Amino acid sequence: MKLKCVLSTEQFTSRQMVNELLDLAGEMEKGLQRGSLPQSLSGKIVACMFFEPSTRTRLSFETAALRLGGQVIGTENAQISSSTVKGEILEDTIRIVSGYADCIVMRHPQDGAAEVAAKVSPVPLINAGDGGNQHPSQALLDLYTIKKEKGRLEDLDIAMVGDLLYGRTIHSTLTLLSLYPNNRFHFIAPQRLALPQKYKDLLKERNVFFDESEDMRAVLPKADVLYMTRVQKERFESKEEYEKLKDAYILDTAALGEAKEDAVIMHALPRINEIALAVDKDPRAAYFRQARNGLYMRMALLHYLLGG
Amino acid sequence: MKLKCVLSTEQFTSRQMVNELLDLAGEMEKGLQRGSLPQSLSGKIVACMFFEPSTRTRLSFETAALRLGGQVIGTENAQISSSTVKGEILEDTIRIVSGYADCIVMRHPQDGAAEVAAKVSPVPLINAGDGGNQHPSQALLDLYTIKKEKGRLEDLDIAMVGDLLYGRTIHSTLTLLSLYPNNRFHFIAPQRLALPQKYKDLLKERNVFFDESEDMRAVLPKADVLYMTRVQKERFESKEEYEKLKDAYILDTAALGEAKEDAVIMHALPRINEIALAVDKDPRAAYFRQARNGLYMRMALLHYLLGG
Amino acid sequence: MKLKCVLSTEQFTSRQMVNELLDLAGEMEKGLQRGSLPQSLSGKIVACMFFEPSTRTRLSFETAALRLGGQVIGTENAQISSSTVKGEILEDTIRIVSGYADCIVMRHPQDGAAEVAAKVSPVPLINAGDGGNQHPSQALLDLYTIKKEKGRLEDLDIAMVGDLLYGRTIHSTLTLLSLYPNNRFHFIAPQRLALPQKYKDLLKERNVFFDESEDMRAVLPKADVLYMTRVQKERFESKEEYEKLKDAYILDTAALGEAKEDAVIMHALPRINEIALAVDKDPRAAYFRQARNGLYMRMALLHYLLGG
Repeated sequence: MKLKCVLSTEQFTSRQMVNELLDLAGEMEKGLQRGSLPQSLSGKIVACMFFEPSTRTRLSFETAALRLGGQVIGTENAQISSSTVKGEILEDTIRIVSGYADCIVMRHPQDGAAEVAAKVSPVPLINAGDGGNQHPSQALLDLYTIKKEKGRLEDLDIAMVGDLLYGRTIHSTLTLLSLYPNNRFHFIAPQRLALPQKYKDLLKERNVFFDESEDMRAVLPKADVLYMTRVQKERFESKEEYEKLKDAYILDTAALGEAKEDAVIMHALPRINEIALAVDKDPRAAYFRQARNGLYMRMALLHYLLGG
Repeated sequence: MKLKCVLSTEQFTSRQMVNELLDLAGEMEKGLQRGSLPQSLSGKIVACMFFEPSTRTRLSFETAALRLGGQVIGTENAQISSSTVKGEILEDTIRIVSGYADCIVMRHPQDGAAEVAAKVSPVPLINAGDGGNQHPSQALLDLYTIKKEKGRLEDLDIAMVGDLLYGRTIHSTLTLLSLYPNNRFHFIAPQRLALPQKYKDLLKERNVFFDESEDMRAVLPKADVLYMTRVQKERFESKEEYEKLKDAYILDTAALGEAKEDAVIMHALPRINEIALAVDKDPRAAYFRQARNGLYMRMALLHYLLGG
Repeated sequence: MKLKCVLSTEQFTSRQMVNELLDLAGEMEKGLQRGSLPQSLSGKIVACMFFEPSTRTRLSFETAALRLGGQVIGTENAQISSSTVKGEILEDTIRIVSGYADCIVMRHPQDGAAEVAAKVSPVPLINAGDGGNQHPSQALLDLYTIKKEKGRLEDLDIAMVGDLLYGRTIHSTLTLLSLYPNNRFHFIAPQRLALPQKYKDLLKERNVFFDESEDMRAVLPKADVLYMTRVQKERFESKEEYEKLKDAYILDTAALGEAKEDAVIMHALPRINEIALAVDKDPRAAYFRQARNGLYMRMALLHYLLGG
């Protein structure tokens, strides 16, 4: 089955669909290195509609489109731009932009906005993050990174640490990873930021092992993949609670000392202080390589949707 | 006569000038469908200087430039950008940008800004809306839409509804339409938002029939073209006055029932609530097609000014 | 020696390095006029990262990249964009963007930011202004302008007027000009805005003549180059002090009457009121030509760093 829009990792119901995109991203990486990328977006225009700003994600999609020979229109922060200020509904904006562009990449602050938009768009649409809901291109690049770093996507102990409640990346990535056999998830979060029931149900349904705790240190010695996320102060009711917990979710060189020698440290970035700068030099620190993989995966997605 | 800049519909003193651009827009539409657009802007740079944001207009001009092989520079919201913040006068900004680009497309919050800018610009300049004054590319795409939907630009009953005082689109469009014979205008607006005397004088001078009223329902049964505009709450002194009038200028399915079977419903968009969502499905609802026509007309304008 | 990054005019330790870029800018100017520019950035992407807005500088770099066949990504005002809002450190942003683009052009509000960024960037980086520190591409275009207007870069009386404390352009330009023999600098500024000691030390070290005063009129009759800058009201403690001084640093037609017949009036723009509009018509007013030269010099820089 070929997707028309990429809105959620829940659309990927088989490993085969994921593997196809992982392979394509690999071809893109090689093509870029060799200077022989397909110019499959030649004559095509991609509209990057960011209703909330996101330097990293927007620039990686724009670069992807340009590297494949396409052109880009868009808005850096549609929240303060005309249509939204004037009170236009999202559907109207999408109807109009889809009359100009061959593809829409959209970031929006509201959960479910991508699906609303896709319903009225005659052109392919990629969800580049909708509220706390989904961020499928991030999940795909995460899998690409794990595959590259570990050589496999199965039989892995995966620790996800921090804000698992609002972290859309976590939601998207675990959904994809749970398609692969023998993975074991370890969710480390303060109770207030625990993984939503919906995703636990999904894992149960797919017979995937997971456990939950508040203690990162306990899981470090067994994690093959350590996926860190930001824990935002403002999510806590009391300062005391935050102060008590915050250090537990900071990866510094001391904590890293307890991790496996071949662990992979990931982070969707931007990181604030949850990964100490000293960790950057460790070969296990994969987050900057992960960010770069985003370019290959976004080229793969655009090529898949528009270049066929 | 070939125009160097497109600043106001008052520059179009003959139907021939308008028809030339309408024909060109038709060629652009066909060229886009067939994938055979002229690459007449190849090597050219268009500067889109938006001193107030406008997603729709900006993106349609940028798309037009890119589809014709050109490139785009610009600012999404120059009001908060450097030059303006630092207090630079508009003329200086234009002098400098015209040293970089081959054409300037400008949106500005002040009436008459386009003419001020054009005076110092050595390169062609298109007014993409200046305050409550003019928006000539919108007027041209409106005529293109009417021609396509009705097959003619003459002998039409045209109802213009809502805010006729500040609506620059209305001003630009009626000026062009009054060049064609046997059109009859029906202006429907609350007194406070009535059409400026200047435009009534123009119509009298051109011997064009028009009448004015506050009652939209009375004119529905005879309108060939029904041009809706936003009536903004903040234009009214009292809440009571607004409450009394607002429903009179909302087109819902009930109101639509009184309209001609072959009427054309237009709106420059964004619409807030002056056209009910249920109307969208009616074949007479032309506003999304109208928005798409904007792309063809803006390609025609850029090709006309730069591609010759 | 070939530079990898252009961060400060202090990198230019010999006239030969400067002359190479001046010659290259001259070729770019001719190439643009003849329509025969090298497409040396074909397949390359330039990231314009503006952490504070600057219409003029950003648009000239973007135009330069596009005219040489390159493409552009970037942010108009990264200060309000995602990474910065979320608290990401500059190094992380640069690490990631340098994974997408082939070159970074950066404007940043903090002194020294360019050097911090260059340290972690694997791709060439151009400082497009960092706080009150440096703005090397402006200095290079200033020298290009003086060479073109005066025919030489030596044996000149150069008056620099206004805010010499915070004016990074002044700092960058005098550093370059002091490489050429027999130039004499005349610094005219209120005491509070006098040139930093660092730059006086540099001139002494290079055995370059300079004097300082608060009186612009005294220096007018001998200046070959008159470089005006903005004197900002907010730099003064008392209104009285500002009122007393401000007129002394305004160039109007009366003041211009005292200047040499072949003087060159320069300004990095935007000007507010320190140069009267009436001066624009005088052939000695070179500031708009100077702005246009910015395009040639920025093409030269991009070609030098990426096109070789």
